[in-house]
Amino acid sequence: MSSHTLQFTARTSVNGVVERDFTVGGVTGALWSPESGADGAPLVLMGHGGGTHRKAPAMKGRAQRLVADGGFHVATIDAPGHGGRPVTEHDEREIDAMQEAMATGVPVGPIVVRYNAYLAEQAVPEWQATLDALQRLPEIGADGPVGYFGLNMGTAIGIPLTAADPRITAAVFGLFWPDLVAETARRITVPVEFSLQWDDEHIPREAGLALYDAFGSREKSLHVNTGRHKEMPRFEADSAVRFFVRHLRAPAPAAV
Amino acid sequence: MSSHTLQFTARTSVNGVVERDFTVGGVTGALWSPESGADGAPLVLMGHGGGTHRKAPAMKGRAQRLVADGGFHVATIDAPGHGGRPVTEHDEREIDAMQEAMATGVPVGPIVVRYNAYLAEQAVPEWQATLDALQRLPEIGADGPVGYFGLNMGTAIGIPLTAADPRITAAVFGLFWPDLVAETARRITVPVEFSLQWDDEHIPREAGLALYDAFGSREKSLHVNTGRHKEMPRFEADSAVRFFVRHLRAPAPAAV
Repeated sequence: MSSHTLQFTARTSVNGVVERDFTVGGVTGALWSPESGADGAPLVLMGHGGGTHRKAPAMKGRAQRLVADGGFHVATIDAPGHGGRPVTEHDEREIDAMQEAMATGVPVGPIVVRYNAYLAEQAVPEWQATLDALQRLPEIGADGPVGYFGLNMGTAIGIPLTAADPRITAAVFGLFWPDLVAETARRITVPVEFSLQWDDEHIPREAGLALYDAFGSREKSLHVNTGRHKEMPRFEADSAVRFFVRHLRAPAPAAV
Repeated sequence: MSSHTLQFTARTSVNGVVERDFTVGGVTGALWSPESGADGAPLVLMGHGGGTHRKAPAMKGRAQRLVADGGFHVATIDAPGHGGRPVTEHDEREIDAMQEAMATGVPVGPIVVRYNAYLAEQAVPEWQATLDALQRLPEIGADGPVGYFGLNMGTAIGIPLTAADPRITAAVFGLFWPDLVAETARRITVPVEFSLQWDDEHIPREAGLALYDAFGSREKSLHVNTGRHKEMPRFEADSAVRFFVRHLRAPAPAAV
């Protein structure tokens, strides 16, 4: 259990949703909560994608849905080298390598996979320290259910995090390769919703299906949609809200 | 356009849902509608699975959700040889063959595929005559949007029906083999939601994925869940309601 304290640095409130910036041991984060009924509400941790940050539009949009439609607390933190955090020479070399691969039409997957695995080694203990600190807040508490929601790099970090931390009891992942994370995914047994794009120009269908297949969860759903890597339909964010409502708020549904 | 008239034979009303039995040219059916706000509501045609009938529990349960949560009219008809309809010697031979295959552990797929294709040849014109008659009802009308929802045999009949009838503008299918229907599925271009079971003891994964892949639709979603053939989770019925709300009531959603 980390002893880092969570410090709030800013607070706004829009449309019934309270947004608070925070730091935990030098890591910058954001916490969204309902204006009312927040006490003891379940917590969803949300990991952002590569090249973005804790308050990117996709994070704010999903947080808004999770708070408004699910009544959850939602927390994000900046991954190492992202958002307000220092970029190392190693980060710069890997980002250059990804950009060169994209520009020259070389598969970017192997670089993303190795770089995200490197970031995950640092990010997993940061997430666990953040969760420790969040659970010391009176409106969250140490006993409430916790979910994790992350696509792309958010999956690369979320798989080892979910496998390592038994406090996380449901997770939404997607858009990643099985290389380096499939073995860890086999150790995950909590309910999972996993999404992939049928026409993903970076991740072959077979790779996405293999990662879905790898999860050790008895209860796991796969959502496939047509379109390229960045064209996942917005209704999948609503599906994630319902998934967390089912698993963090209610008993498991029966079969038809 | 068929000139068969729809005749109502019974009417009940429970929890805000009106259920009316009907016949069209000797085919028995059921129509569920909201008690209020039904005028001009979109219509969802629902095909039942093999060995069941127009008012089987799964049909009533899905109709209840579609009416209560989507405000739709929902119509089912008995497939040939099912429900209140005559069973021919050919039907009896095929049913015996399926039961023997199941009992002896022989793959049942080839028999289901050929028998359902046989039934579909008769069922498609029956559905079209039923839709003609339903659209002459003042509370439905000829201009409203129409969806189709059917799994198992409901998919075997629904694929050629949806390919043949341009009035159907969105469809939910699932749990079937690609053999004999994949070529027809390629001609379907309306939005499709397709479900399969990852541990289906009758339909291999590759077969289900191949049928999803076959649809010509620009917009198509695949939902996979763990579990055997009959273990599709009940939340997929709710997903189908939302699919029809998106496509029969609202403009297409934008990408994230």
